[in-house]
Amino acid sequence: MEKRAKTGKTVKMVVAVVHDHDAADLLEALTTAGFQATKMASTGGFLREGNTTFMIGSDEEHVEEVLDIIKENCESRKKTVAPMSPVANSLEGYYSFPMEIKIGGATVFIIDVEQFIKM
Amino acid sequence: MEKRAKTGKTVKMVVAVVHDHDAADLLEALTTAGFQATKMASTGGFLREGNTTFMIGSDEEHVEEVLDIIKENCESRKKTVAPMSPVANSLEGYYSFPMEIKIGGATVFIIDVEQFIKM
Amino acid sequence: MEKRAKTGKTVKMVVAVVHDHDAADLLEALTTAGFQATKMASTGGFLREGNTTFMIGSDEEHVEEVLDIIKENCESRKKTVAPMSPVANSLEGYYSFPMEIKIGGATVFIIDVEQFIKM
Ligand code: NI
Ligand code: NI
Ligand code: NI
Repeated sequence: MEKRAKTGKTVKMVVAVVHDHDAADLLEALTTAGFQATKMASTGGFLREGNTTFMIGSDEEHVEEVLDIIKENCESRKKTVAPMSPVANSLEGYYSFPMEIKIGGATVFIIDVEQFIKM
Repeated sequence: MEKRAKTGKTVKMVVAVVHDHDAADLLEALTTAGFQATKMASTGGFLREGNTTFMIGSDEEHVEEVLDIIKENCESRKKTVAPMSPVANSLEGYYSFPMEIKIGGATVFIIDVEQFIKM
Repeated sequence: MEKRAKTGKTVKMVVAVVHDHDAADLLEALTTAGFQATKMASTGGFLREGNTTFMIGSDEEHVEEVLDIIKENCESRKKTVAPMSPVANSLEGYYSFPMEIKIGGATVFIIDVEQFIKM
């Protein structure tokens, strides 16, 4: 039940590029579940500007759980945005009815780790 | 002809450390060519201070194209620098004839991806 | 004796997450020893907030030396902290005798590099 990568065990590195606004939830969920992760600010083409790259160490048998946690917190999804208030009427792109926008999304690479060491 | 890495395909991660001043051109060229990349600010010994680390996902058959794009935008090259103006005469390192300096350069690692997932 | 990764040689990528306060010493030690490294600011769960992620390229035969250098500069260790001065008596957590605290620590992943190119 120990999900953390351990010296000498078969470890995978999960590299996940996620949207900035999902990053804090993802880090908390991973940590709560017992996984070790580090994150770096990144930008670019996998997602729009403003993403975060996670490096997660996991024992081979818990990689699926890592993927589930990423999915729960970061998966591409639709969000209904309330119509803008009358005050905003003068702006371009004004709309008077609720709109669906796409948010989130994750690009995930699973990489084999030849040797894992905690020191 | 789809160059982007896809869930379930054989994907490689190309990690490229390039000079800061080549980073914007490289990102644009990769994106125009249909590749997905994310970049992170980095510093250190592969190149002088001030470099950028790219993580590029590519289908196996398009890795050569990624390398070509990196080469075109980042390869180590010589640049002729105009002699300094008389105003600058008082500075140390003054030179009165055109000089060649070395700019650019890239350090590239191609890493096998066990599993690639877009979510 | 050439420790730097070279185009065409069997190269490993050593990814090391270390504490911020050990990062400068590690970079200097690696560079002095002839290794190439780049580092990125990172945060998160491998270590407390404020860590640095190193990406080090090494020929296969010198990976052990990289690990030794990481160990010398970053290994988890105890440090004796002097008792706080009377001025600080009013603070919570005040203690009047020397205390041992744990500092440092490193999480290291060794990853196989399929192809390494300097350009
Ligand atoms: Ni378990
Ligand atoms: Ni094609
Ligand atoms: Ni040697």
